[in-house]
Amino acid sequence: MNSKLGLLEPLESLSMTDRVENILREYFTENAFKPGDALPNELEIAQKLNVSRNVVREALSRLRMLGMVEARPRRGMIMSQPDVLGGIEKVLNPFILSQSNQQDIFELRLILEMGIAEFLFARKTDKDLDELELIVEKQKKLPVLSKEDEIEFHGKLYDMTGNETFQRFQSLLFPVFEHVFATLSKQEEQAVIADPVSHYDLFRVLKEGTPEEFRQAMRVHLSVYYNTIK
Amino acid sequence: MNSKLGLLEPLESLSMTDRVENILREYFTENAFKPGDALPNELEIAQKLNVSRNVVREALSRLRMLGMVEARPRRGMIMSQPDVLGGIEKVLNPFILSQSNQQDIFELRLILEMGIAEFLFARKTDKDLDELELIVEKQKKLPVLSKEDEIEFHGKLYDMTGNETFQRFQSLLFPVFEHVFATLSKQEEQAVIADPVSHYDLFRVLKEGTPEEFRQAMRVHLSVYYNTIK
Repeated sequence: MNSKLGLLEPLESLSMTDRVENILREYFTENAFKPGDALPNELEIAQKLNVSRNVVREALSRLRMLGMVEARPRRGMIMSQPDVLGGIEKVLNPFILSQSNQQDIFELRLILEMGIAEFLFARKTDKDLDELELIVEKQKKLPVLSKEDEIEFHGKLYDMTGNETFQRFQSLLFPVFEHVFATLSKQEEQAVIADPVSHYDLFRVLKEGTPEEFRQAMRVHLSVYYNTIK
Repeated sequence: MNSKLGLLEPLESLSMTDRVENILREYFTENAFKPGDALPNELEIAQKLNVSRNVVREALSRLRMLGMVEARPRRGMIMSQPDVLGGIEKVLNPFILSQSNQQDIFELRLILEMGIAEFLFARKTDKDLDELELIVEKQKKLPVLSKEDEIEFHGKLYDMTGNETFQRFQSLLFPVFEHVFATLSKQEEQAVIADPVSHYDLFRVLKEGTPEEFRQAMRVHLSVYYNTIK
């Protein structure tokens, strides 16, 4: 540990493909490429960067996966509107995420849940409230709420924010959230059943209350999860 | 438009690489591959799936970009812990995101900002509060806050949540948030200057108040942004 070798840093571990991918993304941003703009072809890029066509093909394939570029029949590659959440969707596999990433995601979902009040009140419509009422009236009669019931109620709220990215993001985080929560004690799970603020209560506040009251009610509704936070 | 041909659906637009990428991700999840587990090699995969090695190489290159797999010298490919936000980081380029995606991201950042109160109060330390105090005392003397001042204060709050994924996510969203806000009127921008709840006020509430009071103060602090919401 005391050796002078300890001062040597490992060489940049980027592969040739990583480097070409980074160069291309920077090139597109710096030159303000917009969706629909034609890209230089594979061969031109390879010659310009002095790398093999295979490396360029791999790098472009990565950008195609992210939805940033698109192949059009007989028109070559063009710039494209990416799927913002496409990349995150592919890696949300509880088997491979680190424990701390999973805990972060559990918390991120709680943060998001607490932050939507303003949007719900700004955008709620009578039709939305009627649909939400049907859900909570049905759930009031159930002795215990299933995972599907939870998703139905909270999913309707996400829908009412009018923010599709948020809506999809929350749904994506759900499996990891569940996975983390499932590791908690049975006693803590019981508390979900004895919920001091029910979905019905939240609906009433959303219909007749204020964003502030809604945040307070949501905070109590989520107590069982917040109680696990250290 | 009336032709019977209208009933024909376009063929699945997935490329061979898209299909192999999907198959591999499913295979890893279904077989509970964990970080460190060795993957079958390129040739084996190509033979098993009856596709060319180039297609397999491209698909694996995509997964390497997401950090899901890793090449180890003399050990072949292994499963790896992905970078959760790596994929989203690469596409957050305001030139190529759709207008509605950008608006969603603007709102997402506000949602997150409103949701962190519980975590700040659960995790704040005297050291954090001292550091935050230095920031707000310095800023109190400034006639106008710059973008850097905003990032310094809010960035310290993100840091105090103890959630690295959240912290990085908020920072990633910032350029798009700024880009959307910059399109708003000068009049609305003026309101940022006449902030009814300052960073100093937020600090006082965080030090001596409750999560509820902090959320209310933050809501007022963010009014200029919330006023743009339809």
